[in-house]
Amino acid sequence: MARALVSFLSDYGHEDEFVGVCHGVIARRCPDARIIDITHEIPRGDIRRGALVLADALPYMPAGVHLAVVDPGVGAGRAAVALRAAERERFLVGPDNGLLMIAAERFGGALEAVEISESPERLRPVSGTFHGRDIFAPVAAALAAGASLAKVGAPIDATELRRLELPAASVEDGALTAHVLRADRFGNLTLDASGGELRSALGSVQRELVVEAAGKAFAARRAGTFSDVPAGELVVYEDGNRMAAIAVNLGSAAELLGIAPDEQLRVLTAKAAA
Amino acid sequence: MARALVSFLSDYGHEDEFVGVCHGVIARRCPDARIIDITHEIPRGDIRRGALVLADALPYMPAGVHLAVVDPGVGAGRAAVALRAAERERFLVGPDNGLLMIAAERFGGALEAVEISESPERLRPVSGTFHGRDIFAPVAAALAAGASLAKVGAPIDATELRRLELPAASVEDGALTAHVLRADRFGNLTLDASGGELRSALGSVQRELVVEAAGKAFAARRAGTFSDVPAGELVVYEDGNRMAAIAVNLGSAAELLGIAPDEQLRVLTAKAAA
Amino acid sequence: MARALVSFLSDYGHEDEFVGVCHGVIARRCPDARIIDITHEIPRGDIRRGALVLADALPYMPAGVHLAVVDPGVGAGRAAVALRAAERERFLVGPDNGLLMIAAERFGGALEAVEISESPERLRPVSGTFHGRDIFAPVAAALAAGASLAKVGAPIDATELRRLELPAASVEDGALTAHVLRADRFGNLTLDASGGELRSALGSVQRELVVEAAGKAFAARRAGTFSDVPAGELVVYEDGNRMAAIAVNLGSAAELLGIAPDEQLRVLTAKAAA
Repeated sequence: MARALVSFLSDYGHEDEFVGVCHGVIARRCPDARIIDITHEIPRGDIRRGALVLADALPYMPAGVHLAVVDPGVGAGRAAVALRAAERERFLVGPDNGLLMIAAERFGGALEAVEISESPERLRPVSGTFHGRDIFAPVAAALAAGASLAKVGAPIDATELRRLELPAASVEDGALTAHVLRADRFGNLTLDASGGELRSALGSVQRELVVEAAGKAFAARRAGTFSDVPAGELVVYEDGNRMAAIAVNLGSAAELLGIAPDEQLRVLTAKAAA
Repeated sequence: MARALVSFLSDYGHEDEFVGVCHGVIARRCPDARIIDITHEIPRGDIRRGALVLADALPYMPAGVHLAVVDPGVGAGRAAVALRAAERERFLVGPDNGLLMIAAERFGGALEAVEISESPERLRPVSGTFHGRDIFAPVAAALAAGASLAKVGAPIDATELRRLELPAASVEDGALTAHVLRADRFGNLTLDASGGELRSALGSVQRELVVEAAGKAFAARRAGTFSDVPAGELVVYEDGNRMAAIAVNLGSAAELLGIAPDEQLRVLTAKAAA
Repeated sequence: MARALVSFLSDYGHEDEFVGVCHGVIARRCPDARIIDITHEIPRGDIRRGALVLADALPYMPAGVHLAVVDPGVGAGRAAVALRAAERERFLVGPDNGLLMIAAERFGGALEAVEISESPERLRPVSGTFHGRDIFAPVAAALAAGASLAKVGAPIDATELRRLELPAASVEDGALTAHVLRADRFGNLTLDASGGELRSALGSVQRELVVEAAGKAFAARRAGTFSDVPAGELVVYEDGNRMAAIAVNLGSAAELLGIAPDEQLRVLTAKAAA
């Protein structure tokens, strides 16, 4: 690695010292590490959202070590892992509960992996509840300092690492059936359909649409960005991560549609809906 | 520039990965950049508050590149700009919607400016919604890495950059008519009157005052700091940015007075009010 | 100091520019400083919680300068201090209101101290309300840059620095009477009993317990970590800082027990309670 980079995502929040303590642990083990906080406001224990946010963010991070901790099963027997991805110089460190693999697949999947619960790099005694500090952060720092995977853990089969099952969108001409992957703080909804699927179903030029969600129908517009529609109206667009998305210009689509992650919705051309 | 410094203010919040992704983009383009987060909790789309906070913060930042993104009109035709200020080695990067110019004037105003929507530094394809990542952050990083303005965009007339219209305070002997510029998290209210205007109107020694706001009158005290008045009482003072301000010792003036940004209030000596 | 490290804890929150401005002030005075934010979400003015979080976090920080600002009495005559701890190369900077000394004792107590209200390093004029920016941050940065204590303030008696009075736990065989030191964001409660006291009172093997709090009794289990009990149930364990603690697996003990910091509770074996 040219430079010691550690990116860090968690559900620790900022109210407590958890994030800061992990920074301290990393800085002690690898004083040259640059740490980039992706976000620490993943809802508590929401592995699915953590996995999706991590996958969206990592392609924009410099190569290096990507530390992620959303770990509702801390101490309950899930493996703790470090893996090396196929493409470029990318390492991921975290619990083996599905959090890591969507992101790892953006880098060609996991090429090799080690179990790190008994890593020689861990802080001893390891607490029952704060593996971020005692296991994950010190292992990430050791990798950032140049240690090999073999040095920080015991080899495991990289093909056995856990993957999340996510719902899948379906595309017809004039209609897209999809699910909400996540809502951002603005209430913009990312769907589980790519920009390409959106274009196949609903075209790429501006047109009138209907969004069916939670048993109701809403008028919307296929467009390029928020401000292509009047304030308060729904727009269906390709978002910054090349995914189909729904927003309300200067408002919240999550609130207007009354829909939550994983729930299904349909988007149709006004003609198909009529 | 002696050192690659990027300060960063936005309304992105911390719930999503937006801030972290911009850090990643900057670190990839300019690995030596030091990034200082001013705040990312500007209320969504509140250009006015963003502009005021930026102007208050920048004089305390090292010289370098000041990135600011509060951009409700993303994609709606507002220009994206980078500018160089008259004083010292100060660059500002962000949307041309009034966000930048109050701060730029603290450094003598904009000396030269470029439009960067088509910058060779931008990430392609540029998304319709996340110009912070695709345009503003990479241009800021390029400037931090030593690129000239001419290299990152097309020259525009720096005198045409947008300025916000703000209300103005008026001063009489014994009375100050002013407006709330902003409330901080503690509910302390900064007014649009300088410490000098406060002293002209109400003197600098401790004395009894009346604050008239939202149709009501409140007893207050002219003093130096919160603890010059009993807990729960109003104090009128010069705040950390040399502006007239109103606080409640160990409480919230915003809540007590029931007043919001831009609203007018009057502060009078008890004698003038009688 | 081998490396310029400044850790930073405060109650400034992230809504305003206060934290960012202090970072800017530090970076201007000591461009090589690495700054680690411990947390800035200490509840406003809660010296006690700030002191406890600081003491828990500092042992994980690299040696250096530890800046802490929770300062409800800003401007009210409390001293502003910098101190050097007995063990290792550890400096603490902040208000002398009890915030610093629990942490300092983790490093063997204060060996020498200076009053810094009139420090030659301060930003002038010093505001009445923002001593973090004007006094504490620049003094911390000067120490990080290698200045001696003598250079940043006037010597004071280190044995006279303020300590907080905290309640104390008592241990019998089969019963622990303790108080809530703090709740974290997950609602996990840290008690004022060490892991050793917990083991003396209630053993270290899994067994049934009763928690008496706020006039009610709750069934709980002595165990090693959250997931040793079913979801929604109470577990009494030794937490990541080697303290006795109470949690609800995948829930909030603070909410379930209806108990706040400083309040007393009793934990008994089911046998002792019967």
